[in-house]
Amino acid sequence: MALNVTQKLIKSHLISGEMKHGEEIGLKIDQTLTQDATGTMVMLELEAMGVKRAQTEASAQYVDHNVIQVDNKNADDHLFLQSATQRFGLYYSRPGNGVSHPVHMQRLAKPGKTLLGSDSHTCANGCMGMLAMGAGGLDVALAIAGKPIYIKMPQVWGVRLTGELPDWVSAKDVILEMLRRYDVKGGVGKIIEYYGPGLNHLSAMDRHVIANMGAELGATTTVFPSDEEIKHFLKTQGREEDWTELTADKGATYDLNEEINLSELVPLIAKPSSPGNVVPVSEVAGTPIYQSYLGSSANPGYRDFAIVSEIVKGKRAKQGVSFDVNPTSRQLLTDLVKEGHIANLLQADARLHQAGCNGCIGMGQAPATGRNSLRTTPRNFPGRSGTLEDSVFLCSPETAAASVLNGKITDPRTLGMPYPLVKDPETPTVDTKLLTEPLPYEEARKVELYKGPNIALIPEMDELKDELEIPILLKMNDNISTDEILAGGARVLPYRSNLPEISKFAFEIIDRTYYSRAKASTLEGGHAIVAGSNYGQGSSREHAALAPRYLGLRVALVKDFARIHWQNLVNFGVLPLTFVDPDDYKLLENGDVLQLSNLREAVKSAKEFPISIKGKNRQILVRHSMSERQIDVMLEGGMINWAKARQDETHV
Amino acid sequence: MALNVTQKLIKSHLISGEMKHGEEIGLKIDQTLTQDATGTMVMLELEAMGVKRAQTEASAQYVDHNVIQVDNKNADDHLFLQSATQRFGLYYSRPGNGVSHPVHMQRLAKPGKTLLGSDSHTCANGCMGMLAMGAGGLDVALAIAGKPIYIKMPQVWGVRLTGELPDWVSAKDVILEMLRRYDVKGGVGKIIEYYGPGLNHLSAMDRHVIANMGAELGATTTVFPSDEEIKHFLKTQGREEDWTELTADKGATYDLNEEINLSELVPLIAKPSSPGNVVPVSEVAGTPIYQSYLGSSANPGYRDFAIVSEIVKGKRAKQGVSFDVNPTSRQLLTDLVKEGHIANLLQADARLHQAGCNGCIGMGQAPATGRNSLRTTPRNFPGRSGTLEDSVFLCSPETAAASVLNGKITDPRTLGMPYPLVKDPETPTVDTKLLTEPLPYEEARKVELYKGPNIALIPEMDELKDELEIPILLKMNDNISTDEILAGGARVLPYRSNLPEISKFAFEIIDRTYYSRAKASTLEGGHAIVAGSNYGQGSSREHAALAPRYLGLRVALVKDFARIHWQNLVNFGVLPLTFVDPDDYKLLENGDVLQLSNLREAVKSAKEFPISIKGKNRQILVRHSMSERQIDVMLEGGMINWAKARQDETHV
Repeated sequence: MALNVTQKLIKSHLISGEMKHGEEIGLKIDQTLTQDATGTMVMLELEAMGVKRAQTEASAQYVDHNVIQVDNKNADDHLFLQSATQRFGLYYSRPGNGVSHPVHMQRLAKPGKTLLGSDSHTCANGCMGMLAMGAGGLDVALAIAGKPIYIKMPQVWGVRLTGELPDWVSAKDVILEMLRRYDVKGGVGKIIEYYGPGLNHLSAMDRHVIANMGAELGATTTVFPSDEEIKHFLKTQGREEDWTELTADKGATYDLNEEINLSELVPLIAKPSSPGNVVPVSEVAGTPIYQSYLGSSANPGYRDFAIVSEIVKGKRAKQGVSFDVNPTSRQLLTDLVKEGHIANLLQADARLHQAGCNGCIGMGQAPATGRNSLRTTPRNFPGRSGTLEDSVFLCSPETAAASVLNGKITDPRTLGMPYPLVKDPETPTVDTKLLTEPLPYEEARKVELYKGPNIALIPEMDELKDELEIPILLKMNDNISTDEILAGGARVLPYRSNLPEISKFAFEIIDRTYYSRAKASTLEGGHAIVAGSNYGQGSSREHAALAPRYLGLRVALVKDFARIHWQNLVNFGVLPLTFVDPDDYKLLENGDVLQLSNLREAVKSAKEFPISIKGKNRQILVRHSMSERQIDVMLEGGMINWAKARQDETHV
Repeated sequence: MALNVTQKLIKSHLISGEMKHGEEIGLKIDQTLTQDATGTMVMLELEAMGVKRAQTEASAQYVDHNVIQVDNKNADDHLFLQSATQRFGLYYSRPGNGVSHPVHMQRLAKPGKTLLGSDSHTCANGCMGMLAMGAGGLDVALAIAGKPIYIKMPQVWGVRLTGELPDWVSAKDVILEMLRRYDVKGGVGKIIEYYGPGLNHLSAMDRHVIANMGAELGATTTVFPSDEEIKHFLKTQGREEDWTELTADKGATYDLNEEINLSELVPLIAKPSSPGNVVPVSEVAGTPIYQSYLGSSANPGYRDFAIVSEIVKGKRAKQGVSFDVNPTSRQLLTDLVKEGHIANLLQADARLHQAGCNGCIGMGQAPATGRNSLRTTPRNFPGRSGTLEDSVFLCSPETAAASVLNGKITDPRTLGMPYPLVKDPETPTVDTKLLTEPLPYEEARKVELYKGPNIALIPEMDELKDELEIPILLKMNDNISTDEILAGGARVLPYRSNLPEISKFAFEIIDRTYYSRAKASTLEGGHAIVAGSNYGQGSSREHAALAPRYLGLRVALVKDFARIHWQNLVNFGVLPLTFVDPDDYKLLENGDVLQLSNLREAVKSAKEFPISIKGKNRQILVRHSMSERQIDVMLEGGMINWAKARQDETHV
């Protein structure tokens, strides 16, 4: 049978299950990626599970999120991560080295391999002919320990690219076009595979841009073939030997099909406050801006900065507009400096920040209240910038450059200058020491974990109760992101290894009273939340499951879930239920009390079962879609209990 | 009579009083400087006083402190400052342009002029033949309104420099030598004037380094002559026409005399946690470090970064050591990029941060708990780095460079390499648009002040009570800095324009219970604090007076005060008293209740008067040293009340 790239990747890593849409499959994981916002918990989980050493081919821990050190917390946590990577045999990338996804692509990514990362944009490395997926931290911890990842076999969605991008239109506009067509739920349950003649004009880094924001479509991941362009990319990184060809067989087919003619694309922009809110730039041209922001894993490449440098060269940012430049890595910054682009940008009034995720994750550069911020980043969920009343637009580097010159949103085609030609440096900088190599085993075992005062242990979790009578503390709408469930940013993330502290921020953006009400609920058996569709989209952070769980969340009843958050809820013993009839959503109100009886048996024996609304004399039918394995996890109160009970198996 | 440079500067600006040591003199102010941490309050004060337009020759507002925007607060405040500079006719330097003192030196400083700044390191511009002094924000607001500054005529302390700095020893070691000899109180009540043949080998920027940290000696300011070197400096900045010669008359004398033979100096270092804790580097060589940090107004020059670049070129920072590089301005960064130094530093693993004060003021880059941080910054007061349990050493760029390579404190002379020769760029970048010019008056009056949700009005203050019976809530030791009274840093400074919020941090480092106890005291007439010598050294931030005043502080009774804080206490109606017999300090304890009777009359009619310790049947004699003018201010409850009552005079 002729296979597509996705099927080849899955087939070569299949440990259990069948490649049939909807079935749970187990996949061998070759590489892992953790960043610091999620990684501290992963390292604590490795310790809790008694793991001795990473069993993967390569596992790397990047420090790119919490790089603003306003007190001891982040700095202490970096030392913890450093000691943990030494102890468990991981690569370590220190603060200032850059954003995980492009650095991983440059230093470790290999065609034909699987990559699991505790970051929702892990899919970016799908550009390298890898199966690269985001997951909750606990899943990544298990993968580091050599365990498979279990997912539902997605549909494979073939997107054929034809034509060639016009001047002033770039890779970001391709993925914005996908979001324009399909919105933030369009990729749920699917792996997107790009193919076709249009690929010939997309560099490896262009493909990174497109793969990265597959996360915003809700896709399980995005896959590109490994072709001559990938060979060329690996050669520039001094790793030609890591290349293998991986393309679809002749006659391969897809479960779903789509086509994009690159030649027909125009500059696009996502309006506040959803990446799916896409319109042509021309439609909002003239909107005044407060800020134009470059950087993040959504536009991480040399050309993404160089093109802006060429556009603004010899000119200046409009007075009063903040022109924030965030290099994605030390290696990239070095080249941008050498080739004169940083000088161009500085002379155009750029504010040059340290390499890292920075403002993309609310770590600095928050805009003023209500002012329009234009960013090349992947997300504009409400409050993600750090400013609660924010107004963030997402666009290409070309659009950001044109707009910063005019002080208002500008279609770059209207600039009236020739489209600059940008070439990669002749001999790009390759810093093989960017990642600290894992220690040899004997040496590693001698390393003690360094735990600063900010590291708190993960509390014990009880098993699933048989009877629940719990109030609904929050009823929410569609598309609630994990940024709204538990914010990122400089205020919150420093507590990422301190559950009692970080839980104070749970649902804060939605309802400031949640924390105290939820905390009180723990004395009376916990509580439930209700939400609409695509609940838990966005960031993979497992704190969005763990913190509410710590505050007594026992049941999340929604129309449907985003994949990673659903998995995180299971992993931490929060029962994820969906309405059999979505209309029942309307029946429920804040304060309603849900009664769940014989729950353990119900979960075990049936995918669908009834629950009662106390005092309303109503029953509604709910459904869960956990696998047998996940049902065991749920009954035992979550994956940590489950793994502890099987510690012998994970003592590797 | 032959005059020294200081006397010439004072004489040419004398509005009232006589140049006799200890007498209050009024001085005309030609220029002012405000930064954003103190400037928001200054702008609110200008508004409260009904000021129409700056009456100085040049007033500039710099945004260099709060450049980490983790939410709307700093960004909103920047917009407020921008609107205020437009409305009041000030220059505006936006975030990312750089640290106030070196930028002011490059763009606005003029020999022979006076400069008053709401930043304690304003004295740095003494390097330009100016009388440049730090002051509280309210004093600067009055200066902007055209009012004189009143100070006690200091002694003039002539420091004759001879010889020439040896290899590996630089300007920072000169000021560290002064601190080694005289500690943090050595300059109190004095203006330090450097002269002599040693000056011939010190560049304008070297002199900036020395003048800047005169603040750490407690000096009123530091003065250098304006000679050929200053002419040369102004020429490189395209401002040769601003130069005038200003040197001491032949036969000029000083109240006090000192001499430093530059040839005899060795690399020095200030150990934790005082800038006065100075020893030769060799004495602590081998101490492991967590961080090596470049930047701040204490080592702001091109050479301070270029010398490090040349030392680390082709080498790498010791693994695990954080090598933090903080360019002082956009202009400087541009030159460092162009001349290849940033590339050198990046390749040596530097973490390049945005231009600004940054970690010097606890705005990022805080070290891990208890780990040693080596910095070229001016201050290492406890907790100033952002980490409560910090351990900060202060040193020259050469020492920082040598140490980052070895991962431990290293005397740079032991590196075993030739001392690199660093030359300024042939044609340094001059960015005349770094400062936005003041608007013309008519246009300015149309600008509305932009007040984001973080701007809170200054509460009303009551006049001095005649009878006080108040408890001592804190008894403190010597050398309490304003960093300990009210911390800076990213946690606290965003509330700088919101008194109710920022007051929650008052004395937090010393006693976490102060806030609630003080707040409670406001219901019962307030409270007092007691401290030892040099109370209120360090930063000029007026919040250190204003926040405790808001929380009911009525009397500060200490052995002696640092100048700026003393003035701030007067300005905000906190009675600053000293012990006539310093031994009485020992009599007082936390909780003792002080009784002050007929206080208004006592303050008016006598410099010395008795106060009672309730229940102990003891009286102690206290003293104030306020001028007649200041007594009026105090009786009326502070300068805002005083100025309001005289609003006609300040309606300019």
